[in-house]
Amino acid sequence: MSGLEQRAITKVIIDYEPVGKRVYAGIGQTILAAAQGLELFEHGISAPCGGKGLCGRCLVRLIAGELSLPSANEMNMLAPARLEQGYRLACQAQIAGPCKIEIPVTSLIGRQQLQVESQYQAAPVDYPFKRYSVSGLINTSIHHPHSLWQQIEKFLKDRHGVTGLTVSLALLRRVNPMVTDGELAVAVCGSQIVNVAAVDCPYTPFGLAIDLGTTKIAAFLIRLDTGETVAAEGILNPQIAYGEDLMSRLAFAMAGEDNARQMVSTAAGGINELAERLALTQGISVNQISQAVIVGNTAMHHLLLGLPIKQLVLSPYVPAATLPIETAAISIGLNLGEAARVYMTPPIGGFVGGDHVAMIQASRIDEAQGITLGIDIGTNTEIVLAVNGRMLSSCSCASGPAFEGAHIYQGMRAVNGAISEVRLSSGGMGVSWQTIGNQKPIGLCGSGIIDLIAELNKAGVIAENGRLNTAHPRVRTEPGKVPEFLVVPCEESGCDCDIVITQKDIGEIQLAKAAIASGIILLSTALGVKVEEIEQVIIAGAFGSFLRLESAIAVGMLPNLPLKRFSQVGNAAGAGACMSLISERERRRAECLATAIEHVELAIQPTFKRVFAKSLQFPRLS
Amino acid sequence: MSGLEQRAITKVIIDYEPVGKRVYAGIGQTILAAAQGLELFEHGISAPCGGKGLCGRCLVRLIAGELSLPSANEMNMLAPARLEQGYRLACQAQIAGPCKIEIPVTSLIGRQQLQVESQYQAAPVDYPFKRYSVSGLINTSIHHPHSLWQQIEKFLKDRHGVTGLTVSLALLRRVNPMVTDGELAVAVCGSQIVNVAAVDCPYTPFGLAIDLGTTKIAAFLIRLDTGETVAAEGILNPQIAYGEDLMSRLAFAMAGEDNARQMVSTAAGGINELAERLALTQGISVNQISQAVIVGNTAMHHLLLGLPIKQLVLSPYVPAATLPIETAAISIGLNLGEAARVYMTPPIGGFVGGDHVAMIQASRIDEAQGITLGIDIGTNTEIVLAVNGRMLSSCSCASGPAFEGAHIYQGMRAVNGAISEVRLSSGGMGVSWQTIGNQKPIGLCGSGIIDLIAELNKAGVIAENGRLNTAHPRVRTEPGKVPEFLVVPCEESGCDCDIVITQKDIGEIQLAKAAIASGIILLSTALGVKVEEIEQVIIAGAFGSFLRLESAIAVGMLPNLPLKRFSQVGNAAGAGACMSLISERERRRAECLATAIEHVELAIQPTFKRVFAKSLQFPRLS
Repeated sequence: MSGLEQRAITKVIIDYEPVGKRVYAGIGQTILAAAQGLELFEHGISAPCGGKGLCGRCLVRLIAGELSLPSANEMNMLAPARLEQGYRLACQAQIAGPCKIEIPVTSLIGRQQLQVESQYQAAPVDYPFKRYSVSGLINTSIHHPHSLWQQIEKFLKDRHGVTGLTVSLALLRRVNPMVTDGELAVAVCGSQIVNVAAVDCPYTPFGLAIDLGTTKIAAFLIRLDTGETVAAEGILNPQIAYGEDLMSRLAFAMAGEDNARQMVSTAAGGINELAERLALTQGISVNQISQAVIVGNTAMHHLLLGLPIKQLVLSPYVPAATLPIETAAISIGLNLGEAARVYMTPPIGGFVGGDHVAMIQASRIDEAQGITLGIDIGTNTEIVLAVNGRMLSSCSCASGPAFEGAHIYQGMRAVNGAISEVRLSSGGMGVSWQTIGNQKPIGLCGSGIIDLIAELNKAGVIAENGRLNTAHPRVRTEPGKVPEFLVVPCEESGCDCDIVITQKDIGEIQLAKAAIASGIILLSTALGVKVEEIEQVIIAGAFGSFLRLESAIAVGMLPNLPLKRFSQVGNAAGAGACMSLISERERRRAECLATAIEHVELAIQPTFKRVFAKSLQFPRLS
Repeated sequence: MSGLEQRAITKVIIDYEPVGKRVYAGIGQTILAAAQGLELFEHGISAPCGGKGLCGRCLVRLIAGELSLPSANEMNMLAPARLEQGYRLACQAQIAGPCKIEIPVTSLIGRQQLQVESQYQAAPVDYPFKRYSVSGLINTSIHHPHSLWQQIEKFLKDRHGVTGLTVSLALLRRVNPMVTDGELAVAVCGSQIVNVAAVDCPYTPFGLAIDLGTTKIAAFLIRLDTGETVAAEGILNPQIAYGEDLMSRLAFAMAGEDNARQMVSTAAGGINELAERLALTQGISVNQISQAVIVGNTAMHHLLLGLPIKQLVLSPYVPAATLPIETAAISIGLNLGEAARVYMTPPIGGFVGGDHVAMIQASRIDEAQGITLGIDIGTNTEIVLAVNGRMLSSCSCASGPAFEGAHIYQGMRAVNGAISEVRLSSGGMGVSWQTIGNQKPIGLCGSGIIDLIAELNKAGVIAENGRLNTAHPRVRTEPGKVPEFLVVPCEESGCDCDIVITQKDIGEIQLAKAAIASGIILLSTALGVKVEEIEQVIIAGAFGSFLRLESAIAVGMLPNLPLKRFSQVGNAAGAGACMSLISERERRRAECLATAIEHVELAIQPTFKRVFAKSLQFPRLS
């Protein structure tokens, strides 16, 4: 009897190395599923395709023990030699007994330092917060039977003319209503007393601005009284364990109510983790965070709020909510202050979310003079074109994963060991490269891939249609395999193998860059302007900041305009979230933007196919 | 080894008869504690003194099994013959092994029909609710990619000029955002869409008004669109299992955080039970209740909200909150609509609560012409005197339990078998009586006791100071026992014993009526008016409705004024809660009242002792 026939009955111990985690798993579970019981956040296995056995990114190696026989997908993805070495796909291989599994570092969801800042200034603070020093309080006694709240109320009325105040229930429960001190610092938010404290240690209200991206969550801890950003941090969105792209996650969430709840709590868990980390940097409690603003694409928005998503994955991709949502933080599982509220910037449409609104809000494209293009390159890329106050925007789906290394044979994120810059010499015979952290190269990150393809294009190693010149000495062809260009030979690499870029990789980048380029062209056409007339190009998003503009122009991703028209502004969506956090007026502005921006569905434009096909080509720039 | 030495280790089965409930209890637990694990609401054991072994009301009988030896309190409370018959006090006797316990019906917290109505009309409705019929909706499709919410928003804007609407998160989660029907009924509350439904079955918003009394909870289910009270019901406050008076419950709640939480959840449980029962009568779900208003005395208010109470039980009895509180129903454990809010009418002081405010609100004493006295007789009695718009109020603590039969040897609540009217003839030799439900008498309820004492006073069986004339043939004296007057001999009673009123009982009533009478005198003095000048007396509360005015005047509880100046109005506090439920304006009025009413602490008035001592006397009316 094989171990598999005992599915889900026997529990066995699985050792995950080198992270050194042990878990109990059921016979018949996949390695990926068993690993999802781990503290996913730091040590999970990456599953970009959502565990369908299609991307090969969840590569693991059996060190000891017993697994199921390789699946058809594994046979397809892994060379026989790799299989013999014990390599398997974590999403396919099922546990057949106790075993020890090695998770290569390239298959791990790592903790990354992610760029979260932008060049934008905070908006003027209009958060309705006031701090009062209340003095002359008299100890509550039979001779002066007035509670703390009565005395505070009277003081604020007499001295400051403030009336109609309430006290939050949480505060009423927590604070002794008997006065025992003559002087206190009282914090008032709107018409509610939110805190009392000693005068020498007055309460500071904090807020949390969140850019909830498909891949990354960026968080900003902000003083609501001054608007100052006191700390910022980014982590990978832990939902990534359920698929790297939106569709995989939506599909996972739709598979059952438990799944949907899991997605909701995973996203909330990521935000809670960030809130705790940020609070820790300031020595405060998360309880002191009284307001949050979250921006995200429509799918992230829906998956956090637990809204219906079925209609979001089918044409015409209708969002369940396009109005702004303000609710109790606790109602969506966020552990912030007891009465904390959360505001979600409204999405525009099914694939153009509140993050895009926030990006336009921060970059003030709506107020820009002349023809202005905004591009926010994330896991998806949103494009907005503004001409005389009219704004059209569109979304180029799934352009990002290629830039972030997914779908690329030896692609990886922008972490240590990733090749981030490439120069070719001698017609492509010499290759020089730079890695992040100056470590031995183990793969190619987005900016490295764009650089490399731009250089291959310039050196004529690839044709206009992207075909590798198989006659080139560094281009290798093997029967039954796609051609590949050798970037770093095995002996110079840090990963025990050659680093190459394959014909398929080039195709992925062609699709991704064509999506952006054709979006720009189609929006220009829709507004009756020429691409050359664009006077200002704002490139937002972390990848956009690292991108070398010359290379992006050279591959045809960005229009061939003078470099001085471009600005790389970083995380503008995050900056927009910060603005909405400290200003009611900014929220209303964001809501007006969400209504004003016209969404263009690229795929249904009559010239889409022709423009897209043309954009797949690599330009021959002089 | 006695069973007691194994305390809290062994679990044994306890059979409670005749309710037929079995529970597991630990050796060493009291019978009362073990019974608190039962569904207390209907079958709990009454423990008026809070389980201190002082009131003797938790009488039970051991049918089989083993209990601890009688405690000193039990020896004191129970005659040797009773002890021999197996009678014990549930709060004292500890479980020593499996046993079968009989709980006499008189020791049970019964389900009572409690008077909840008042004579007052509802206020004009200004609840911000609107119902719209939205038509012409077009099925969401690629040709018309607009969600339900977008179409509703557009319709309401175009047809009704309504803008700035939001949709509750709960509704967004629940409703399919794809339009599949051309016509819908949309319910809007304030600026929020709270429901969508088929046009032939439009949504009705319901509200719940609660008078949270120490003894009773009265609840009113009200249509928020019309203000109509569609159902009303009263139950005993299930907190009664932790003590009949406020102080016992406050003491229980202060004994530990678990206790405090238990009190909170018990009160909320009572309200939830009422909400469910009322919803059932209308065939609706409690989810349809979107707003609640709760009035109650300050202790009930604090015990429901989980506010600090330590300062409430010690002079100067400072409430933790005197401002109105509005919060999410779920934050205080109420299971109503998903986004339901609850409003608590603010208290005036430590012992004058929001229920008193609501009583004045409903009876409009503040607007009354001339000198008006308001008396709300409940477990505590609140008194208000209004002269030319100035209002003084006070609380006569703990007057109610005597009227409700607690502290009275054979007292009982106004349920079947209670003597509610008494007439004496032949100088007290003949006694005729009337019982509720025309059943054999088993005890005396409040109105019967007042009647009886008034008749005893009139017949000269008691002296001015309350002493029973021991020479009277129906007055029995026994060495070591207080004198008692025989009301119903054993053979005519329904309880296997004589029904008597003891000298101690008369003393209890003297204390209770003197508290009310001296309150009236002291408030009059404070406002510089004579009691005889009072032009109108409003008597609120269920007991006040059943009370025979002539008898209450005869015992000196109420001032000797012409009967036509009195009105018995029923549950005015409940009526005030109903007003606040359907009208924001009424809430503001209640808040103004709470601020305007001046609280007088009777016990610290210089003449208090003299007036109180005088009020203890029984008047000799001609």
